Amino acid sequence: MASDRFDKQIAFLLAIDKSKEVIRQTYLADKSRLENDAEHAWHAAVMAIVFAEYFPKADLKKTLMMMLTHDLVEVFAGDTYCYDEAGNATKAQREMEAAQRLYGLLPEDQKEMFFSLWREFEEGQSEEAKFCAILDRVQPTMLNDAAGWISWKEHEVKKAQVEQRNAITFAGPAEIAAYMRGIIEAAHQSGVLK
Amino acid sequence: MASDRFDKQIAFLLAIDKSKEVIRQTYLADKSRLENDAEHAWHAAVMAIVFAEYFPKADLKKTLMMMLTHDLVEVFAGDTYCYDEAGNATKAQREMEAAQRLYGLLPEDQKEMFFSLWREFEEGQSEEAKFCAILDRVQPTMLNDAAGWISWKEHEVKKAQVEQRNAITFAGPAEIAAYMRGIIEAAHQSGVLK
Repeated sequence: MASDRFDKQIAFLLAIDKSKEVIRQTYLADKSRLENDAEHAWHAAVMAIVFAEYFPKADLKKTLMMMLTHDLVEVFAGDTYCYDEAGNATKAQREMEAAQRLYGLLPEDQKEMFFSLWREFEEGQSEEAKFCAILDRVQPTMLNDAAGWISWKEHEVKKAQVEQRNAITFAGPAEIAAYMRGIIEAAHQSGVLK
Repeated sequence: MASDRFDKQIAFLLAIDKSKEVIRQTYLADKSRLENDAEHAWHAAVMAIVFAEYFPKADLKKTLMMMLTHDLVEVFAGDTYCYDEAGNATKAQREMEAAQRLYGLLPEDQKEMFFSLWREFEEGQSEEAKFCAILDRVQPTMLNDAAGWISWKEHEVKKAQVEQRNAITFAGPAEIAAYMRGIIEAAHQSGVLK
């Protein structure tokens, strides 16, 4: 009885299970282990619900759909640490191929929908894309702060790198910008983020 | 500069990080390990996007908000396996106390919002609650099927138990009901789910 359409949807939903095995460079707040893409997307999506009041121009449904799926291409392309310059040089090409392969599992209309949602996130121009870009920075920084800046220490990240990556955050809602500046300054004062 | 309101929001967002350490009885599709609450909520939420067409009466934004948060109380109450009769006898009381404690971290208006969303899920009457209840059953069953019904084997689950738990699924969209009946029947024919 299952249709071809339904079978394709299940194939896609099974393929993205691998998001749980794409390991990021962010530790859980209690430092017990690194988190994975699925956990990151979930946490950032719940953060979108809580922080929606700071982004009145963004549509929350679209933001949630974008946040939940923004890293799906890493199932085939792998995670690239935001401060890995060599990895980031090849990231766009790897991710475009991965998107074709992953979203190609879906029925055509849904392939188009998910693909354009991902492109919109990557282009970073819409209100929802900006909201997601900020959450994509705040969620790991919040955890890293709770974990004593362990990721920044391990990778010897520089203050200027974090500030450059957070230009979009500083241009966002004042409360969130102040929170992020506070974390960066505290780490810098403590000798982390030189 | 951070307000009391913002501090409360961060306290809540840090507390729910523990969802990543609440382990369920469902294995990843590749059987490598059991999944956790955050991963389950993420996967079921993406499933909601893909399956939204089968639930035209449900509001997708509300469904996503509900799906992302439906198990948050387990941060303090722990996960209760759906076929654990003793655990389920005390579940309601434990979860109500956990909800008061967890949502109490938030500003009052958000506490009310998240609490009522959780109550609505638990009561199971609205279109969104029914959609989430079905996803809450289909997501682990899809993984368990991919993993060779390993959870059902380990817990010696009976066919009648799965059918009882899926009464709501069978009353739902025909495609999904057929998919679930197919998995249950295949496992039963193979000697699993006696």
